[in-house]
Amino acid sequence: MGKKNFVKAITSRDDDFAQWYTDVCRKAELMDYSDAKGFIIYRPYGYALWENMKNYLDKSFKETGHDNVYMPLVIPESLFMKEAEHVEGFAPETAIITIGGNEELQERLIIRPTSEVLFCNHYSKVIESHRDLPKKYNQWCSVVRWEKTTRPFLRGSEFLWQEGHTAHAKSDEAKKEALDILKIYESLGKDILAIPFITGLKTEKEKFAGAVNTYTIEALMHDNKALQSGTTHYLGTGFSEAFNIKFQDKDGKVKPVYQTSWGVSTRLIGAVIMVHGDDSGLVLPPNLAPIQVDIIPIMQHIDGVMEKAKELKANLEKIGIRVNLNDTDKSPGWKFSESEMKGIPLRIEIGPRDLKNNQAIIVKRYNREKITIDIDDIEEFIPKTLNYIHDEMYQQALRNMEENTREAYDYQTFKKIMEEKSGYVKMMWCGDEECESKIKEDTKATARAIPFDQTPIGEECPVCKKKAKYLVYFAKAY
Amino acid sequence: MGKKNFVKAITSRDDDFAQWYTDVCRKAELMDYSDAKGFIIYRPYGYALWENMKNYLDKSFKETGHDNVYMPLVIPESLFMKEAEHVEGFAPETAIITIGGNEELQERLIIRPTSEVLFCNHYSKVIESHRDLPKKYNQWCSVVRWEKTTRPFLRGSEFLWQEGHTAHAKSDEAKKEALDILKIYESLGKDILAIPFITGLKTEKEKFAGAVNTYTIEALMHDNKALQSGTTHYLGTGFSEAFNIKFQDKDGKVKPVYQTSWGVSTRLIGAVIMVHGDDSGLVLPPNLAPIQVDIIPIMQHIDGVMEKAKELKANLEKIGIRVNLNDTDKSPGWKFSESEMKGIPLRIEIGPRDLKNNQAIIVKRYNREKITIDIDDIEEFIPKTLNYIHDEMYQQALRNMEENTREAYDYQTFKKIMEEKSGYVKMMWCGDEECESKIKEDTKATARAIPFDQTPIGEECPVCKKKAKYLVYFAKAY
Repeated sequence: MGKKNFVKAITSRDDDFAQWYTDVCRKAELMDYSDAKGFIIYRPYGYALWENMKNYLDKSFKETGHDNVYMPLVIPESLFMKEAEHVEGFAPETAIITIGGNEELQERLIIRPTSEVLFCNHYSKVIESHRDLPKKYNQWCSVVRWEKTTRPFLRGSEFLWQEGHTAHAKSDEAKKEALDILKIYESLGKDILAIPFITGLKTEKEKFAGAVNTYTIEALMHDNKALQSGTTHYLGTGFSEAFNIKFQDKDGKVKPVYQTSWGVSTRLIGAVIMVHGDDSGLVLPPNLAPIQVDIIPIMQHIDGVMEKAKELKANLEKIGIRVNLNDTDKSPGWKFSESEMKGIPLRIEIGPRDLKNNQAIIVKRYNREKITIDIDDIEEFIPKTLNYIHDEMYQQALRNMEENTREAYDYQTFKKIMEEKSGYVKMMWCGDEECESKIKEDTKATARAIPFDQTPIGEECPVCKKKAKYLVYFAKAY
Repeated sequence: MGKKNFVKAITSRDDDFAQWYTDVCRKAELMDYSDAKGFIIYRPYGYALWENMKNYLDKSFKETGHDNVYMPLVIPESLFMKEAEHVEGFAPETAIITIGGNEELQERLIIRPTSEVLFCNHYSKVIESHRDLPKKYNQWCSVVRWEKTTRPFLRGSEFLWQEGHTAHAKSDEAKKEALDILKIYESLGKDILAIPFITGLKTEKEKFAGAVNTYTIEALMHDNKALQSGTTHYLGTGFSEAFNIKFQDKDGKVKPVYQTSWGVSTRLIGAVIMVHGDDSGLVLPPNLAPIQVDIIPIMQHIDGVMEKAKELKANLEKIGIRVNLNDTDKSPGWKFSESEMKGIPLRIEIGPRDLKNNQAIIVKRYNREKITIDIDDIEEFIPKTLNYIHDEMYQQALRNMEENTREAYDYQTFKKIMEEKSGYVKMMWCGDEECESKIKEDTKATARAIPFDQTPIGEECPVCKKKAKYLVYFAKAY
């Protein structure tokens, strides 16, 4: 990494959140821009975050009976046009191949913006009988959506994701699948990202193009805006009717399959940055961190320092900790900043004086707490402390979410909160798109989720005064 | 899987090798065709083969200090044009995006056929000093090359692969990298695929567009044609000069970096099929097999049979064996065929009579050997036998390669062997492209590799009678 990356401090988070975000993305060396607008380069440290999420999810998907597959990058235009709502949703942002092998193509090829139609087309060929069901497929790939304004990880012309596509004999089974996967996504937040999610149903206006129901996980960022972090869709038989995916059931009748689709993307990297980061850079939860412990030797040329640092590294790696030993010729101060920018959960400082006292200094990244510890206790201390940090980071994010979740019983209060504080506002809603649109126009806030717990907080919709149907979480969102 | 897949036997391997190959690909449910010509669907069983190769390689790459990254799918045309030889090699087979978000693009975007130029462009921005070197990056992705004639896994408009791209301060270090990776590829063959490779240098005519040296692993298929199964390239400074990738060395001087690139692809799945497969379908080496043991209960409705089968499965899984229990309502004969078509290394048959005698029947897929074994010995027997099968399959492939490797001391003999037997022919060569082209024209055989062991078998080039420079392996190839 070049020196220029660390010489200047990053923008303060509370001065200019957007600039702070971009600074962290670049200076923590998560990504870089490419020469094609909207397409980013995932650098090793950024890609490693995605790999850790991927490993967790891939294991969970496999344990619950899902198979990985790979569908083509391209969709012939005629196939793409088969499901009307879906086309309407995605056609405006497609990238299209018109030339192949120096020749104009007879049929234009759409780069997949999502692969429902590819899976559906395949399912229509391989599903015949109830014996062939369920089909529970997932794929890891990149997709392309032509975006006018782009931001690293949050909105790009290309992003990495997983997309699950399943087919079932029964409606209930498909609905359960959409909810089961939502739980896996929630666990990813709880176990790996240290991010609590609001979960629930999307409104008709906000749901996926072609879905009957869309379920969502929503996270609250440090600037009090919400980030849709993943969705699962119950597709009903809309696609199976359009693509003729039929099976012969046990009763001999031929029926359309019930389907789901679901996905999370590298957008989750953006969530981690904006939930946990601070003015010194990234702050990584230990289970996600590619490096969990950064050992920084002080006066490393003095006899015994490097030896001890190496010994510590080896011992910690033996018990499964991911350790970096920063033995470059940079100054300790420089290394501290670098370690902080990269959000490494724990750093161990060890110098000649520490050696004499058989001790080391341990600094927690997330709250900068400094602890002097007996070297012999390190192997016991580190794993315990990493667990503790994970829990604390999760609790801190949860507290922040709870403190920034408010209830509004009248529309004036709603507007005031959205103007002054943002965050989540819980409010009753009549269910009409008209009120939903008025709220967006007045405040820029959108319905993020209709939570599963529908304990009402009022009887009428504060906007139109009609009878309320749902309790809704509203927020301004990315 | 639908019944139609197994009702008809596949084409005999020796009657029509090409048709046999396609039959196996489809009937073992490795792949299916998509609606976009040349783009295939990797079905679960086919993708699982790739995942197993990927896991092995990814681990090896990481252990040798390589980082995974992800570069964009697209290359702006102007960037693509920077390295002349490279453009000449790849431009004719590119797919091009000309429309994005309903608008004609100002600059056309090439779908990556390989990502040298993307890595080079990035390296030119992040490499400044000798401290930034080496950079050893790898990425897992798909690439697109517009092919007129396509065959599943062997040649397609899109394929999955890994591409490594490294930059070094010293030429020797880069050359060593290209050879070290070749060794990792060889190990993949030896440890996982049970395929022996011929390794060596490619001729100028056959090398990668833009490389100084290309090294190759070549495998011999059952039809005696060679398959180029992976390559590593020493790129010298050709790309770093074109892309201005310079670093300040320890001596203060600014120098271009030395580079390598290297890759293997899903083509390896094709190699496994064509080296090991037979008239009953796929034959998988145990370390690659997604399912290593297929348990088939006989008269599964009889008391105790299913219970014993489940117990066996659980016990084998506990010791790390990948097991399938085929408890569908198909007949045992059907299940045997299915198990054979999918190339599962071992099947265990267990029925009421076996239960009474506390025994089971074990059948080895690769040579159909049937063994009756005491049930209590199964857990000891299976892992040992899987290892044995792996070794035997490797030795069998090695013997086949050796038996079909001949030497030619005169050109008449060379032509005769190529006409009658094919396989590898070792022959001396003057090093002139003219002779190489004549050989291809006369026999369709190409220079597959200049092996590292250059013990000469003659003094002159049998084609032109000039002084010989190299010993070369020739073969007809895919």
